[in-house]
Amino acid sequence: MTLDDLRRDIDRVDEVLVRLLNERARCVCEIGKLKKELGIEVYQPSREKDVLRHVRAIASEGPLGPDAIARLFERIIDEARRLERRVVHGESDGAAHE
Amino acid sequence: MTLDDLRRDIDRVDEVLVRLLNERARCVCEIGKLKKELGIEVYQPSREKDVLRHVRAIASEGPLGPDAIARLFERIIDEARRLERRVVHGESDGAAHE
Repeated sequence: MTLDDLRRDIDRVDEVLVRLLNERARCVCEIGKLKKELGIEVYQPSREKDVLRHVRAIASEGPLGPDAIARLFERIIDEARRLERRVVHGESDGAAHE
Repeated sequence: MTLDDLRRDIDRVDEVLVRLLNERARCVCEIGKLKKELGIEVYQPSREKDVLRHVRAIASEGPLGPDAIARLFERIIDEARRLERRVVHGESDGAAHE
């Protein structure tokens, strides 16, 4: 396999990753709407811990390993929280995390 | 759909995300080995820009949007570079980015 072949493989994986990240985000928006209806707080640290525990547990086989996977999911959760806040409060927390 | 249903959906998406992130990482390791053989530098900013341009271009349809997708991929690229360095130099840059 050449460098170009491998880069094409990565581009294809990235296309699926973008699709899945947006699918996840759509679930997060639905959760935001539900929480708004039910009057539940967006930030639920125990659920965030469960998500990290779950991905760590299934990450042990791959080359990234649990720590790198957890770092990436901390960011995914961060973006999810930002999106959910927008759904629930119409808030934009802008560039606060940059 | 209940909150629990939606959370189960997210857990399932996360499982596929972990699998894909590791599949991407395996390609990155192969690229690292090739670069080592060919004596090419790990850090190739023009390729990193291409990756970001690519994911931005396909991110416009979803709720996350191009900026959030690009932020997430900056982290994915960061982890990829860290892994590639380990493959090429046997380096560990440890907790330098934490």
